[in-house]
Amino acid sequence: MKLDVYFSPAQVDEMQLRDKNVIVIDVLRASTTIVTALKNGAREIIPVGSIESAVKVSGNLFGDVVLRGGERNGKIITGFNLGNSPSEYTEEAVKGKSIIFCTTNGSSAMVKAKYAKRMAVAGFINVSLAAEYIRAAGEDFSIVCAGRQQLFCVEDAVCAGMIVKILVEDAAVPAELNDAAVAAQVLYKNVGKNLLKMVKSCDHGKYLVEIGFENDLKTCVDVDSIPVLPLLIGNMIKLKKDEVKHSITLDVQEGK
Amino acid sequence: MKLDVYFSPAQVDEMQLRDKNVIVIDVLRASTTIVTALKNGAREIIPVGSIESAVKVSGNLFGDVVLRGGERNGKIITGFNLGNSPSEYTEEAVKGKSIIFCTTNGSSAMVKAKYAKRMAVAGFINVSLAAEYIRAAGEDFSIVCAGRQQLFCVEDAVCAGMIVKILVEDAAVPAELNDAAVAAQVLYKNVGKNLLKMVKSCDHGKYLVEIGFENDLKTCVDVDSIPVLPLLIGNMIKLKKDEVKHSITLDVQEGK
Repeated sequence: MKLDVYFSPAQVDEMQLRDKNVIVIDVLRASTTIVTALKNGAREIIPVGSIESAVKVSGNLFGDVVLRGGERNGKIITGFNLGNSPSEYTEEAVKGKSIIFCTTNGSSAMVKAKYAKRMAVAGFINVSLAAEYIRAAGEDFSIVCAGRQQLFCVEDAVCAGMIVKILVEDAAVPAELNDAAVAAQVLYKNVGKNLLKMVKSCDHGKYLVEIGFENDLKTCVDVDSIPVLPLLIGNMIKLKKDEVKHSITLDVQEGK
Repeated sequence: MKLDVYFSPAQVDEMQLRDKNVIVIDVLRASTTIVTALKNGAREIIPVGSIESAVKVSGNLFGDVVLRGGERNGKIITGFNLGNSPSEYTEEAVKGKSIIFCTTNGSSAMVKAKYAKRMAVAGFINVSLAAEYIRAAGEDFSIVCAGRQQLFCVEDAVCAGMIVKILVEDAAVPAELNDAAVAAQVLYKNVGKNLLKMVKSCDHGKYLVEIGFENDLKTCVDVDSIPVLPLLIGNMIKLKKDEVKHSITLDVQEGK
């Protein structure tokens, strides 16, 4: 099994990801937000690459059933219903809704994977499940870090490194790693011990604190706190049906 | 002082580097080859972004005084005088020559820095001098790793990390680092102990061994073995005059 990590979507294009198995990681915050939204009952997320596409896709549907979510410079887009903070994607806000989703880094990276064989969305909140998904598929995977404005982001690299480490340590899965996968693992082992400290001191984390989203940081590094795995099905990101049931069962068990 | 590392030239464009101070790192092998060529008396290196540009620039000059050097897939380009192995750039081959230089990663990254305020070429062979150059300038620097086909290469990242570490440890230079600079330093500290082992096991190093350039690897990680610093002057890469003299003096002292 070959695991290739890409530290920026600028390093891959649509055609390179065609028919590949892809994991997209955008810890701050698109991955965390999408996972939260689907766990809270959103019907589906439709990732788009630009505000223009978001407006076009939603068209007349915009309203009760279809919401627009996303950000530019970390802030909600004018005319959109929701920004990119997982805290906004409550059950009350998103249950039963389709969400056209447009963020600077995450949704663009997901759009690049539109011709992929498989595409799953991962962050720290569902990291073990992402590793389990790769292990179960038993095939080569490309792990694409969304980064920030095409740049390397340490939080995405460390999350990729955590997935690589889980798989490498599983003796049943011998993995062939590219340079970035090796580096990601080194980074996870070195700065992954205190994830909250790491996101508070990284470029993107510092910016989010500056614009008032400090509370999101804790949510985004809460490892395995939301064990559902969003998958690209057609051009929409959804949970598999059994996962939705599982998620609801869990909530009932937890007395929610 | 701000130190920004970029793991791939895909992450920056010409305009972002305009009027900036830039270091370009291509350990395997363009940096090492350029440093070797200039140390061995080449008059200047003219980096170009494509074979077409190389042919155009050399034009009628091609011949005795002007050489074409470079590679595609690591191998010499048809019709060129020299490939991209530092071992080819002997005093006999290059003394007094202008070299039009075209490589897949290194020279393209250098061309991207054509509007920079300062641009220097660094590898392990002149790493301390590159750090000293940044320290002496006392200004912000962008360190661009050439990588390989736009991808992350661990050897360039580790070299960037070594420069960052030298500067950070110098208490006189407080440095503000971007995420990639922090990560590069972590990588240097973890996999920089045995550079030869590192290049032998990295993606690009394995490929070079495969096509018969194993001997180059040792040359490329020989730390501070050629203490000269190629600088972009106009559209040419040269040594400053006093450096040429210094280099010659050193050779005389060493009895060469």
